[in-house]
Amino acid sequence: MDEAFVRLAHGNGGRLMRELIETVFAEALGNDFLDLRADAARLPAVAGELFLTTDGFTVEPLEFPGGDIGSLAVHGTVNDLAVAGARPLWLSLDVFLEEGLAREQLVRIVRSLAGAAREAGVAVVAGDTKVVPRGKGGGLYLATTGVGVRAAAQPLSLAGVRPGDRLLVSGPVGDHGTAVMLARGEFGLRGGVVSDAASVLPLAEALWSMAGLRFMRDPTRGGLAQVAHEIARGVGATVRLKQAAIPVRPGVAAVCEMLGYDPLYLACEGRVVAVVDPALAQTALAAWRALPQGREAALIGFVEEGPAWVVVETEFGGERLLEELEDDPLPRIC
Amino acid sequence: MDEAFVRLAHGNGGRLMRELIETVFAEALGNDFLDLRADAARLPAVAGELFLTTDGFTVEPLEFPGGDIGSLAVHGTVNDLAVAGARPLWLSLDVFLEEGLAREQLVRIVRSLAGAAREAGVAVVAGDTKVVPRGKGGGLYLATTGVGVRAAAQPLSLAGVRPGDRLLVSGPVGDHGTAVMLARGEFGLRGGVVSDAASVLPLAEALWSMAGLRFMRDPTRGGLAQVAHEIARGVGATVRLKQAAIPVRPGVAAVCEMLGYDPLYLACEGRVVAVVDPALAQTALAAWRALPQGREAALIGFVEEGPAWVVVETEFGGERLLEELEDDPLPRIC
Repeated sequence: MDEAFVRLAHGNGGRLMRELIETVFAEALGNDFLDLRADAARLPAVAGELFLTTDGFTVEPLEFPGGDIGSLAVHGTVNDLAVAGARPLWLSLDVFLEEGLAREQLVRIVRSLAGAAREAGVAVVAGDTKVVPRGKGGGLYLATTGVGVRAAAQPLSLAGVRPGDRLLVSGPVGDHGTAVMLARGEFGLRGGVVSDAASVLPLAEALWSMAGLRFMRDPTRGGLAQVAHEIARGVGATVRLKQAAIPVRPGVAAVCEMLGYDPLYLACEGRVVAVVDPALAQTALAAWRALPQGREAALIGFVEEGPAWVVVETEFGGERLLEELEDDPLPRIC
Repeated sequence: MDEAFVRLAHGNGGRLMRELIETVFAEALGNDFLDLRADAARLPAVAGELFLTTDGFTVEPLEFPGGDIGSLAVHGTVNDLAVAGARPLWLSLDVFLEEGLAREQLVRIVRSLAGAAREAGVAVVAGDTKVVPRGKGGGLYLATTGVGVRAAAQPLSLAGVRPGDRLLVSGPVGDHGTAVMLARGEFGLRGGVVSDAASVLPLAEALWSMAGLRFMRDPTRGGLAQVAHEIARGVGATVRLKQAAIPVRPGVAAVCEMLGYDPLYLACEGRVVAVVDPALAQTALAAWRALPQGREAALIGFVEEGPAWVVVETEFGGERLLEELEDDPLPRIC
């Protein structure tokens, strides 16, 4: 790809497309399985239950403090496998380029994506690029699909969750949502908030073998509130959260205060919510706090008999119902 | 999803998104593995080499004679596995919806996608939807990733291709490209050309167990010309095609004649090019012709010692070099 900008011809299946793939994608992502000439990557047999997950990524701006759409696309899919109790093995990558995207930016993002994959120990083994006409895309949309193999001692699901089980979160919530919001500059605000976008594999791995681990989830779109609702609905019980126990960085709290947002609805991209047997809570918390990613982990609530609601105990001793995210009160940040 | 049009709030992770997924996607695609509550689908262990492939889909118009973007997304991924010698097992689906897309059209397309998956015997087990703002998408972009297990007797690759090997095509070329071009109405042309978009699984399956099958490819973007170039480059030899032997429907030939296109560069979405040992050519051809999808299969050329060129013998006894698709002389149709 010699040109400074992506052209429609980079998607036509011909020479320019081949060169784009070779010089930008294969260059950064190359591995033994990624065969540019094959229709499908040939992989070794795997012993064990397979897991499959997929996610699409659209974020504006494409690069933000703490990450970019490339690393996000790897983390998101790695994290979905990790919290499901699976070790990520391979990824596929679909790229929707908008005509006019700067080559330099694409190269930066693909390198960042490759770095995130290396860090998580996964190989991008299959890919595809399409170029859409100017004005029909957002610069760059990505979709990543991950294949993993079961690594958790027991299958994780809400079916095993019982009243009394504890909720843990691995770190402060809302950093990613706030960082992207600020990076857009829409509100005339600036701030030092950095996205938490990261692989949660070490956090998930730390709990995989523990009896009493019921369920994990990474709170992305819809934030902690949405995960709490999924748990309440899936278990058919009340989730009770303690506001004072939920870690929120001062910078995030300040932005939310000014704009009237609740940080519990803001996306994280590197946190885990775990539901554990009460007997496991302190052990799991200690395991997380021993990791650099989990230093601020906290016990934030529990499941109790009752309607499928999410109740937040406020810092002043009161209670409020945390509504399910309904319409779109939040800027689109993921 | 009660509204007639997709809104940004259908992508926010909250109630509206959940309802969209339940009423439109799960309704059509439901199967034992598709767990709307899980981050990743849990699948049984598979004995054998795994294959992974992915493709992004952007087509305008979203529906055209003979198919739509939904069935295309399934066929494309199923076909990539099939020609690689793998039986497709599971698919994942990423959906990029543009704000304002009509609900009715989305429902039609998702149902068509589900029908194509049922026909190919694959289950869509994981999915994700994102909504992009009006003017940042093309109505609907899809990405599908497929997991398959090796079914061909031997691994298929260009490494096994030798001078003398024959090239077969399973049916007429350029139907898809022409049908989509006409459906756009850009040229003021109308015609009865119907896309060939279909699963090639039965065609691939018919050859999987045959010794002497070297390589298969479905000629999509860039058409037969691009596949011929891949073979020439991959083998390091000349591919020689006989113009008169390449099946082209009269309607396709007429449109190409008028617009000055070469049908060899037009996309197919339901054809296979196979490279076989010369001793297998007639058997393979007979196997294809016995199938409804392969009635018009033809022996179209061979590989010979020489530079990595593609030579076409014209109907008048001459020869021309078939260039690799360079810039973008063709309307974007896939």
